[in-house]
Amino acid sequence: MWIYEKKLEHPVKISCPDVAFAKLVITQYGGPDGELSASLRYLNQRYSMPFDNAKALLTDIGTEELAHMEMIAALVYKLTEGACPEDYQAAGWGGQYVQHDNGLFWTDANGIPWSAKYIAALGDPITDLVEDMAAEQKARATYEHLIQMTSDPCVKDMLRFLWEREVVHFQRFGEMLNTVQDWQAQKQHLWCGHRPPEEETEED
Amino acid sequence: MWIYEKKLEHPVKISCPDVAFAKLVITQYGGPDGELSASLRYLNQRYSMPFDNAKALLTDIGTEELAHMEMIAALVYKLTEGACPEDYQAAGWGGQYVQHDNGLFWTDANGIPWSAKYIAALGDPITDLVEDMAAEQKARATYEHLIQMTSDPCVKDMLRFLWEREVVHFQRFGEMLNTVQDWQAQKQHLWCGHRPPEEETEED
Amino acid sequence: MWIYEKKLEHPVKISCPDVAFAKLVITQYGGPDGELSASLRYLNQRYSMPFDNAKALLTDIGTEELAHMEMIAALVYKLTEGACPEDYQAAGWGGQYVQHDNGLFWTDANGIPWSAKYIAALGDPITDLVEDMAAEQKARATYEHLIQMTSDPCVKDMLRFLWEREVVHFQRFGEMLNTVQDWQAQKQHLWCGHRPPEEETEED
Amino acid sequence: MWIYEKKLEHPVKISCPDVAFAKLVITQYGGPDGELSASLRYLNQRYSMPFDNAKALLTDIGTEELAHMEMIAALVYKLTEGACPEDYQAAGWGGQYVQHDNGLFWTDANGIPWSAKYIAALGDPITDLVEDMAAEQKARATYEHLIQMTSDPCVKDMLRFLWEREVVHFQRFGEMLNTVQDWQAQKQHLWCGHRPPEEETEED
Amino acid sequence: MWIYEKKLEHPVKISCPDVAFAKLVITQYGGPDGELSASLRYLNQRYSMPFDNAKALLTDIGTEELAHMEMIAALVYKLTEGACPEDYQAAGWGGQYVQHDNGLFWTDANGIPWSAKYIAALGDPITDLVEDMAAEQKARATYEHLIQMTSDPCVKDMLRFLWEREVVHFQRFGEMLNTVQDWQAQKQHLWCGHRPPEEETEED
Amino acid sequence: MWIYEKKLEHPVKISCPDVAFAKLVITQYGGPDGELSASLRYLNQRYSMPFDNAKALLTDIGTEELAHMEMIAALVYKLTEGACPEDYQAAGWGGQYVQHDNGLFWTDANGIPWSAKYIAALGDPITDLVEDMAAEQKARATYEHLIQMTSDPCVKDMLRFLWEREVVHFQRFGEMLNTVQDWQAQKQHLWCGHRPPEEETEED
Repeated sequence: MWIYEKKLEHPVKISCPDVAFAKLVITQYGGPDGELSASLRYLNQRYSMPFDNAKALLTDIGTEELAHMEMIAALVYKLTEGACPEDYQAAGWGGQYVQHDNGLFWTDANGIPWSAKYIAALGDPITDLVEDMAAEQKARATYEHLIQMTSDPCVKDMLRFLWEREVVHFQRFGEMLNTVQDWQAQKQHLWCGHRPPEEETEED
Repeated sequence: MWIYEKKLEHPVKISCPDVAFAKLVITQYGGPDGELSASLRYLNQRYSMPFDNAKALLTDIGTEELAHMEMIAALVYKLTEGACPEDYQAAGWGGQYVQHDNGLFWTDANGIPWSAKYIAALGDPITDLVEDMAAEQKARATYEHLIQMTSDPCVKDMLRFLWEREVVHFQRFGEMLNTVQDWQAQKQHLWCGHRPPEEETEED
Repeated sequence: MWIYEKKLEHPVKISCPDVAFAKLVITQYGGPDGELSASLRYLNQRYSMPFDNAKALLTDIGTEELAHMEMIAALVYKLTEGACPEDYQAAGWGGQYVQHDNGLFWTDANGIPWSAKYIAALGDPITDLVEDMAAEQKARATYEHLIQMTSDPCVKDMLRFLWEREVVHFQRFGEMLNTVQDWQAQKQHLWCGHRPPEEETEED
Repeated sequence: MWIYEKKLEHPVKISCPDVAFAKLVITQYGGPDGELSASLRYLNQRYSMPFDNAKALLTDIGTEELAHMEMIAALVYKLTEGACPEDYQAAGWGGQYVQHDNGLFWTDANGIPWSAKYIAALGDPITDLVEDMAAEQKARATYEHLIQMTSDPCVKDMLRFLWEREVVHFQRFGEMLNTVQDWQAQKQHLWCGHRPPEEETEED
Repeated sequence: MWIYEKKLEHPVKISCPDVAFAKLVITQYGGPDGELSASLRYLNQRYSMPFDNAKALLTDIGTEELAHMEMIAALVYKLTEGACPEDYQAAGWGGQYVQHDNGLFWTDANGIPWSAKYIAALGDPITDLVEDMAAEQKARATYEHLIQMTSDPCVKDMLRFLWEREVVHFQRFGEMLNTVQDWQAQKQHLWCGHRPPEEETEED
Repeated sequence: MWIYEKKLEHPVKISCPDVAFAKLVITQYGGPDGELSASLRYLNQRYSMPFDNAKALLTDIGTEELAHMEMIAALVYKLTEGACPEDYQAAGWGGQYVQHDNGLFWTDANGIPWSAKYIAALGDPITDLVEDMAAEQKARATYEHLIQMTSDPCVKDMLRFLWEREVVHFQRFGEMLNTVQDWQAQKQHLWCGHRPPEEETEED
């Protein structure tokens, strides 16, 4: 279970509201490679990891991504604070105002609602960790695109913080992939997971 | 941000594995009226609530629903523990095994991946609280259907615990709806939200 | 069955075409909280209501929402009447022209096609009526947002008419909820629906 | 607008409940080629038809498809009348019971919620009428498959009635396609629709 | 199987980059009536055609549509070549840049990801061929809309080439429909497909 | 463009029809980690690769995946050859028969239509290649699950062939990832792609 602590993982500051950028950055809230995708992918996969360290890593990063999701939510709220309907319309985001007022919603930058089709869980630790590494790369690239599209130094700073965290997560998933591969090489008889298909027909 | 505490909100016990019931109960994990829907609905709405108590209520219940989601995950893992491919096939859930092995995924009982289209946020506190009350009713009814479909007393107990929490949440959202309505009646000039449409043309 | 009567429930007039507003108001045609959602939600639920008054209410309101859907369609056609491709492009709605010409389609303001994931039916009369009350609130809030985003007094008038109907429907669903709750309290032994889960294990 | 008349277009009788067949026939309620698809396709397209006869045809058939949708709803309710959770489970439709009780929902035979992605409207009368002819063929084929999958003569009768209506609609759309093509050949200068692309560059 | 030949079916030239038009024309890449829809519809249906000519026609056209899809991809790449983030933003396509950089994605002009819900396969040759004729009409109409929305003569030329191919495919599907209907009339006893439903009950 | 060669990449043989297994293996046709996903992912990404070898690799593998998709189609057709409606119903796949007869459709094992939400393209060569490696792992794991669920040695053989191809593709994408990383390290000034975000503010 989770305990909510009433603070953000990292402060969220902006120089001035910018509805047009809010429309873009929301993809990291509810888009294919955003923080919700990350959190739900990792928290879901942890049960099928073969040992405790791996489960713990997925729990830790999955929980941190929840905090990142909250930072992006705070960012979008600040970027749209005090915005009137005309501001949304001018930013090409009138549909957001009509459908959600100043509220948020789990969509990408085109307004597509989040779907679990964006993420995967194969129940195979090697596969799931490579999937997680790809997820971190996709989040990293998206943050790079976003950093290019704002000129607000406060926003750039905060997005760089999140960018750095994705790079760290990528490395940690890479290390765990090595650990799991070593463990599989050494202890395969104790693990009840998949064997190479060549061996399968003999036993089942 | 959230801190993970390594325990479940309530113990999850089963009498014996039951893949066929796992196929049904997964709707409370990733189905339209399940715990993910609940948590993401409330955590997303809290920013547009007009005062701190209301924000806190949505944060609290949203966080508790994360814990319920984890309980359902634990339940599904226990119900499928040690199940072999044939068990999945016999339960009409072979597709789950092929696509996710013994892992979980955010789907309903038919395998439909979770979609944010299931939930809503209108940015209007009255609307969002009535939506939340409906959500609790839908979760309650789903738990009643599930309780009817298992004969395992341990599982029934755990589902009843979750059923009770939905009833409590329904009441708490109902009380907050009253509070917000009173607040709107008394302090409408201070609140920057929507006015009755009759008054709108004068000012904009 | 339904008989088509060749008139609108309420006249639809506009002062002048406005493609940009058409792009927004289409969410009440095919968006999550629009008239199609309302109509299909109620018409679908009526069979599982426990007595005739409740069935009739859902049929009546579901049928009226079909008429509202037609009014919104007429509004969108008038707002786009005579518009050329450049007008669509200038309104940020070029994709609509390319994909549907001057025709309509069942989408929200971002072009997302309508999905039954937006609506619910739990087969439980209490739940379904609370869901319906939430639906009316969501439609009400959306009309308020739209009224803010047009300056055409004819369009405002027509949207206010629809807004008022949602308020009336909300009240009628609320009254029916009371009626069903009274009926359940008095006649629970005659009704074959769900009992409180505490009583269930004894009998099944 | 529509007036509801409290009778079915054609009587719906069954010999005995059959949950397994209800699970299949529901595709004509909320599946890709079902009655909802038909009705919403035609009612949406009518505004962009070039003359009144064509608009009226789409209104008439679209309204009749609403009545067919209601017949399918009545059929599914009768096929599941009195069914208990175990009956749903035995029919491989336990998810339906858990998520909707004895209620209906707009899905196909796999539980996929209805989506407007199933239908089309290009705003071009020739295109839309050919699309409508294809829709009638798809509904016809689906009814043939369903007739093969039930042995209940009452159900076969009712499905044959609907099958025949699809054949009639196909013919009527075909006749209207001829009419529109003739009209376009004779009156092309009066019609503001698309010209052959070869002529376009001169004028725009 | 397919062999890739490193050339386009028809040259793709543009006068100058035009991100705003790229945003529209992408619907022919990943939109409901685009080239991916066409190719996947035909390649999927060919197995259930009753004789070799029909299978071959679907294979040929399905393979050609792959080549058209590649031409559209090349067109979008050229239209966006050298575009910077600001160019995307100015064209109302900032979300594309953020989510895909200068890469492509299978979406319509609103950013909706491609879905197999757009296409159909009923396993009945008559039905599938009428569906295919409708598909060609829809693609034709979409090309007409696009030709209206660009003033670049090179782009118009290329789109006219594709437009003409759709017209040819429509005719070829129409001819095959006649062939299949004749074949069914003459050889119905040899074909194991559907019979008229009147005859069905006797035999099953 | 592509040339169709009328043979399969590898022969497809089965010992006897098996509708229940066809229902599972179809996920490699139209499911999240199937051959269509693979092909469309790679063919779409190739344009944003920074040099010709990388483009060619994606074209080659994307084209080979088309051939694998065709092998899976052939397998499903053979597994269902001669199956009557009752066989589909007995295999829990009655909905497939009703909606598609003996035809195929682009779905996963639960009947969910294919969606481009399953795949990604970030326009960043490192990201896209890691994504592709994850895709190959997911396909590999799915083939392992399928191999476990059939006892037909011919089918196992064919699936092992496809399994092996995924492993080879994984290695080839891994090698290309190294090549691209080396190239980026040596030639970063010549490449117009993303720079580390630390350097960005100076220049834009």
